[in-house]
Amino acid sequence: MPHINLPEGVPGIVSAMAFRPETAKPLSELAQILLRGPSTLSAAEREMIATLVSARNDCFFCQTSHRAAAAHLPGGSYELVDAVRSDYQNAPITAKLKALLNIAGRVQEGGKSVTAEDVAAARRIGATDLEIHDTVLIAAAFCMYNRYVDGLAAFTPPDPDAYDEMGARMATRGYTGAARETTASDRA
Amino acid sequence: MPHINLPEGVPGIVSAMAFRPETAKPLSELAQILLRGPSTLSAAEREMIATLVSARNDCFFCQTSHRAAAAHLPGGSYELVDAVRSDYQNAPITAKLKALLNIAGRVQEGGKSVTAEDVAAARRIGATDLEIHDTVLIAAAFCMYNRYVDGLAAFTPPDPDAYDEMGARMATRGYTGAARETTASDRA
Repeated sequence: MPHINLPEGVPGIVSAMAFRPETAKPLSELAQILLRGPSTLSAAEREMIATLVSARNDCFFCQTSHRAAAAHLPGGSYELVDAVRSDYQNAPITAKLKALLNIAGRVQEGGKSVTAEDVAAARRIGATDLEIHDTVLIAAAFCMYNRYVDGLAAFTPPDPDAYDEMGARMATRGYTGAARETTASDRA
Repeated sequence: MPHINLPEGVPGIVSAMAFRPETAKPLSELAQILLRGPSTLSAAEREMIATLVSARNDCFFCQTSHRAAAAHLPGGSYELVDAVRSDYQNAPITAKLKALLNIAGRVQEGGKSVTAEDVAAARRIGATDLEIHDTVLIAAAFCMYNRYVDGLAAFTPPDPDAYDEMGARMATRGYTGAARETTASDRA
């Protein structure tokens, strides 16, 4: 049961956002820019960063919903995102994404865990400053979203299959109801 | 030295926001609503929650700047915020704020650390659902801001005195340049 009187029958962060629409607006806009805005990282890649951080924070609602979103995006699949979540170093993804996932994992532990060498390794393999910035902020933002959902004990459907339709909607409609913007890698 | 090419001579989160104005907008708006928007908690009380969480996350820039903001707000002082930061259970603050600081500390550890008893204790002492919600989200948001600043190794002035003027500006102008809104307890 949620810790406060959140609207019933609405899952996870959606119920918290319905309770407090004033804060829902910037929270949604931040997710939209980071996960669907113009980027040289595909939306599926960014959702996989969000999924990994949410898994490390043990937030079932966030990791399961963003897993489903990644699976429904161009270049994504349940098989791929599950491989990233369990062992990204051996997943069939680019070396650049592996280096960015390493940085995201450090951010989840704490900001100071990110080392100059972590960043240099990502840069050597072609990551730009903007990609590094966005990876740090996606990871930091999910340290917020995860705590927001679980800190309120928001309703979390237990069956992963219940998240498939939610993920499809997140993939096509994004976080502010706007259509998904095309990224460089979607076009490739 | 910052991990990426942030503008020089600009401290902490301000440099990261100048690097990426698109994400700066929702990040600033969220801080403004949570820390300066209409609330039954005073702005100084909310800045003390932000300071405690930033201290627990060992983010020098955020804890020192929000400490200064709290000191410059009505009802705040350096002595008070330092007492809260080091041992809030014995600080001269309301029992309700102590119960909310306890919840914020749990959120800093992780969302699942918040127990039904933590929330019940706050409610018994008069905390409303909105106050509990905002406490959880302030704590969660500072788990993001702290990681954003330190994850990019943003420039952090080492002398706490260098933050006094910054704190005065944060107290009077807030986070989006708007004037501070009056809260119920400011008027009391």
